[in-house]
Amino acid sequence: MFSGAQISLYPMCDDFVGVILGALSALDPYRERFRIETDDVSTLIVGPPEEIFPAMRDLFVAAAASGVHVVLSATVSRGCPGEPDDPRCTPLAGGARGPLDQRIAQARQRVAEATVLGQPVAAQFSLYPLGADAHMDEIYGCIDFLKGSGVFDRSKNFCTKLRGDAGPVFATLSDAFLSFGAPQGHVALDLTVSANSPTKS
Amino acid sequence: MFSGAQISLYPMCDDFVGVILGALSALDPYRERFRIETDDVSTLIVGPPEEIFPAMRDLFVAAAASGVHVVLSATVSRGCPGEPDDPRCTPLAGGARGPLDQRIAQARQRVAEATVLGQPVAAQFSLYPLGADAHMDEIYGCIDFLKGSGVFDRSKNFCTKLRGDAGPVFATLSDAFLSFGAPQGHVALDLTVSANSPTKS
Repeated sequence: MFSGAQISLYPMCDDFVGVILGALSALDPYRERFRIETDDVSTLIVGPPEEIFPAMRDLFVAAAASGVHVVLSATVSRGCPGEPDDPRCTPLAGGARGPLDQRIAQARQRVAEATVLGQPVAAQFSLYPLGADAHMDEIYGCIDFLKGSGVFDRSKNFCTKLRGDAGPVFATLSDAFLSFGAPQGHVALDLTVSANSPTKS
Repeated sequence: MFSGAQISLYPMCDDFVGVILGALSALDPYRERFRIETDDVSTLIVGPPEEIFPAMRDLFVAAAASGVHVVLSATVSRGCPGEPDDPRCTPLAGGARGPLDQRIAQARQRVAEATVLGQPVAAQFSLYPLGADAHMDEIYGCIDFLKGSGVFDRSKNFCTKLRGDAGPVFATLSDAFLSFGAPQGHVALDLTVSANSPTKS
């Protein structure tokens, strides 16, 4: 298993470097379990699939606390057959998974229990279950989960938009990534999260 | 057929609204053939698949001419079975397609003929051929094309990075999107393009 994300943070201000550097310490609690590499376009994090969205959440909320319009963009992936197995990517929760309706109910329960962080965000994302004939069944199941998540905003062309507090929004994104598509299958997720936008929604 | 993209432009400066508004006229030559809708997170363009990357190129080069660090992020899609057919998305070039090695050679030829625009960019992207058992064959074929494109920078986890002039880089991205994955199949592409970054590559 290999799982992780390529993450970029875009603060829309002259001091964007300062905002990014000021937010990076939010990743400190995750550094022990992740491999982290940065270049001029993105930061790679490789580690357990269940911690990818909590790490992105904490990084983004720290940057958004600056008050400037800030966007996090990420390419998230698990189970890519072109990547080497890595022990640090072993899922924390193993075992068999139930049918689609059961996974939807469990995912909603986890979102309902997510801690509210006091940071409003808008998010949109696309889920790609790869190498599977019935990929649209998993996508439609995921959309069903999203509609009852409490943070569903609307369906858009090519993606789904969420809106609400960063806590339940990132919990919803994490479950979309973990609970749909085959457990050992190749699943990718393309994510944009925005805060403090001057544009009315 | 349905094809288009959700596009966002991120100028890293206090006057990000001014930079975005100043670049939008670059889309004027495309407006007649595209449906364009904007909200607080992204701008949707729906139209012919061959014109999606030229439109994004012209928008991005106009924004990068401001000299500020600017990033374009996009979710590009064609053939999604969950989207309605739209006559404006009819491919300009129809007809049968050849085997993988022929498509690679033709794609390289088109990139070699791309106009140089004088704007250096870094780009990274992931290609997702969906609903297909042999999706990795098309991805590896695409990577083969990219390595001989003249703008290949390196393979990264979850994505491929390009670097060079905006003309051949966007031509390479366009051919990665159009020439790989089944002609009528569901193909998505997750894109980040960056210019004027203060970070050394």
